Amino acid sequence: MIAKNIQLDEQGRLKHFLSIEGFKRQHLVNILDAAEPFANVQEQAMKKVPLLRGKTIVNLFFEASTRTRTTFELAAKRLSADVLNININTSATSKGESLLDMLQNLEAMHCDMFIVRHKQSGAAHFIAQHVSPHISVINAGDGCHAHPSQAMLDMFTIRRHKQEFADLKVVIVGDILHSRVARSQIHALTTLGVSEVRVVGPKTLIPSNIENLGVHVYHDFQSALIGADVIIMLRLQKERMQGALLPSEAEYYQQYGLTEEKLSYAKSDAIVMHPGPINRGVEIASSIADGPQSVILEQVTNGIAIRMAVMSQALGPKSPNGGKQP
Amino acid sequence: MIAKNIQLDEQGRLKHFLSIEGFKRQHLVNILDAAEPFANVQEQAMKKVPLLRGKTIVNLFFEASTRTRTTFELAAKRLSADVLNININTSATSKGESLLDMLQNLEAMHCDMFIVRHKQSGAAHFIAQHVSPHISVINAGDGCHAHPSQAMLDMFTIRRHKQEFADLKVVIVGDILHSRVARSQIHALTTLGVSEVRVVGPKTLIPSNIENLGVHVYHDFQSALIGADVIIMLRLQKERMQGALLPSEAEYYQQYGLTEEKLSYAKSDAIVMHPGPINRGVEIASSIADGPQSVILEQVTNGIAIRMAVMSQALGPKSPNGGKQP
Amino acid sequence: MIAKNIQLDEQGRLKHFLSIEGFKRQHLVNILDAAEPFANVQEQAMKKVPLLRGKTIVNLFFEASTRTRTTFELAAKRLSADVLNININTSATSKGESLLDMLQNLEAMHCDMFIVRHKQSGAAHFIAQHVSPHISVINAGDGCHAHPSQAMLDMFTIRRHKQEFADLKVVIVGDILHSRVARSQIHALTTLGVSEVRVVGPKTLIPSNIENLGVHVYHDFQSALIGADVIIMLRLQKERMQGALLPSEAEYYQQYGLTEEKLSYAKSDAIVMHPGPINRGVEIASSIADGPQSVILEQVTNGIAIRMAVMSQALGPKSPNGGKQP
Repeated sequence: MIAKNIQLDEQGRLKHFLSIEGFKRQHLVNILDAAEPFANVQEQAMKKVPLLRGKTIVNLFFEASTRTRTTFELAAKRLSADVLNININTSATSKGESLLDMLQNLEAMHCDMFIVRHKQSGAAHFIAQHVSPHISVINAGDGCHAHPSQAMLDMFTIRRHKQEFADLKVVIVGDILHSRVARSQIHALTTLGVSEVRVVGPKTLIPSNIENLGVHVYHDFQSALIGADVIIMLRLQKERMQGALLPSEAEYYQQYGLTEEKLSYAKSDAIVMHPGPINRGVEIASSIADGPQSVILEQVTNGIAIRMAVMSQALGPKSPNGGKQP
Repeated sequence: MIAKNIQLDEQGRLKHFLSIEGFKRQHLVNILDAAEPFANVQEQAMKKVPLLRGKTIVNLFFEASTRTRTTFELAAKRLSADVLNININTSATSKGESLLDMLQNLEAMHCDMFIVRHKQSGAAHFIAQHVSPHISVINAGDGCHAHPSQAMLDMFTIRRHKQEFADLKVVIVGDILHSRVARSQIHALTTLGVSEVRVVGPKTLIPSNIENLGVHVYHDFQSALIGADVIIMLRLQKERMQGALLPSEAEYYQQYGLTEEKLSYAKSDAIVMHPGPINRGVEIASSIADGPQSVILEQVTNGIAIRMAVMSQALGPKSPNGGKQP
Repeated sequence: MIAKNIQLDEQGRLKHFLSIEGFKRQHLVNILDAAEPFANVQEQAMKKVPLLRGKTIVNLFFEASTRTRTTFELAAKRLSADVLNININTSATSKGESLLDMLQNLEAMHCDMFIVRHKQSGAAHFIAQHVSPHISVINAGDGCHAHPSQAMLDMFTIRRHKQEFADLKVVIVGDILHSRVARSQIHALTTLGVSEVRVVGPKTLIPSNIENLGVHVYHDFQSALIGADVIIMLRLQKERMQGALLPSEAEYYQQYGLTEEKLSYAKSDAIVMHPGPINRGVEIASSIADGPQSVILEQVTNGIAIRMAVMSQALGPKSPNGGKQP
């Protein structure tokens, strides 16, 4: 069965960005390549380019997230697009309007792109299936499902430091079960050809069928770290966990917090990543978060470039032979 | 007695847009004509024009309305104006500042236009009477009184489909009593020369002296629909109605909801309108809202063009013989 | 001991604007001079200049203030900068992120300037000490400490009316104790060489060591007004006062409210100022607030020009010999 990938248009170019699944290696490489000039744009005094002037991008946030909203808003403004921030809790849905009616209204106002953040897995996908052909949808986090632009900024950061993905050993640490970031990262890493992806965390926070995604499961952090090139710490999603999946923060830190001592098991040039916001002394020691192997703030910087890349690929002028096709 | 119409400047050009009353036919036609190019601008890839670059437009919302705020914000941004969103509940009035002092402060900051939304009838009019000469005020809905830009987008939509107003039979259906939209529509339709405006709804929701506005009152929906060219469904303003003016939603739908069967009494090319957000299965059947006679989403699109027209007429460069004078 | 003034860069040019203390006369004159063309820009039809196009300015408000936020937002937009509004109550700090981590994230997004409003004295200073070298910090009010852009707009207003500072008698009236505005004004006035600064108010609202700042303390309002050129009324910060520092509003007005009768003790061309929002009939009679000697609304207008001047001095292109050095 060949299911149509709604994330691509008929010429195989990016239309929606909902999840890493469904993209081939070359698609992801295209996005990484497109982000390179934007990473440089940001370092210039004039950070703005007129690529999406006249386009309207809507931050459609069904769950508050100042940090994520901010990165998309900045990316859109640096592409010269107009940005509308719509917080759904305070909007017309309280007047009983259905989601689809609200979307149709925004489309009728000739909006061009919806950045969707939603508590429920599949929300962005659902919206992409129901919008008109001229609209692009970007998933900015849906439940425990996906957060593909976060995964891509991580890939961009890894590539800048390690150049090639093929021979890397990448360790993802923590609450894999509730992390949309982890799921997207695993798909991105395996698609880009990383030879060994390891996940490590308490048994209660590792999904039972996770090996099916091509990863190796560890429960002992030190073993997982041996020979690692890249260590990706996950945020402990306190607000997502109900009840007794975890012992205490102190005990978690003792077993899965990244300390100087544990870091010494990885390669000496290993980089340490975290999607933020970090819980110092829970997931990671402050000395490491602020230390020479940390690339946490580079991830934030690269996040703007990746979002500019995704937005401009989906909305920008499309040359017929502008991108290498997979 | 010739009362000065504060909505016009001394050359008879648009200054404030507070209510349809006080405008002659040619004024309204000027606004409709001015909206035509903006309706086309929106369909182009570059939706933005530099007409109001350097102007500052303030959304002064004393009552929340994401939908209305969004349409004005988009219209202003597509004219390249700067937009300030001020929600009065969370603003300095909580520090005891009077409304007039707050307005004077915004004027002193060289703001150019106030878009006013207020629960109380007459609020926009009051504000327009007290601002300095260089400020324009647009009424974005005041209590049960007026919502003139909504009425004008309806007129624009009707003209696009029916070309001439003179011979039309227009039916307005529902809660006439609490609807600022209905009042504005009736004034616009009669000013533009529509030969027959019919209003229909439960006795409790039709104002007693409504015939004075030149409309025909019906209580039986089917009789009202016979020969209709345009059917305007009103939103059932649940939040505005106190107590027992209405039986039940089901009974309301049975009598005044627009169904396929009832629609068949109108002309076969009748168009169906609704200001949104729609209550499916209360005011209108889904099959009609989404059907070929519905122009509901066109109304939304035209709303941006009309607001761009009103804003640019009030603030844009004024040529001495730029508009036909009534 | 020569403490480095963190408000200046190594060439002695404006970098942060945290408090008037630490600036020499020429620095303040430079800011006033820089504001002159912006005051004129605002009176033109095109109020916008492209000076900070591509820069990102963040309104980082830890305490709500629509009025202050609005003036900074307008100033930034009229310089063509992009503006991000971040209200910290609703932001990621609720996820337990530390302030410094949040700042580092915003820096990593290549933001250029933080406009900081905070309940706590010293907050803007603390932030300025911890940001990276490319970031400018503007204090938009911190506790009872400072509000330097407000003081500078007052100086600008005084200079426009009185040309020279040297021979002026300036009276500051009211709650000196809790007023960040008053502290900043006193420093600005004495630095600019005003010969006599008088403060007057109830004993409970005058700090005990205030004479050290070079001001004369009065408790009788009429004596303080004799021969005054400039009268600066302070806002009665009701929300800041705990308990019984004040008798009643009526009694306050009777003793320290500015009435026509009291105003007659000042010079006949004295100007009356107030930072707003005003409490009519508490601090000032309406007839004076709206009368010919009031420059209260000019202060608001000048506030935009001063903020544009400060922003462009801190962020704009810097010519090596562009400003006179003190």
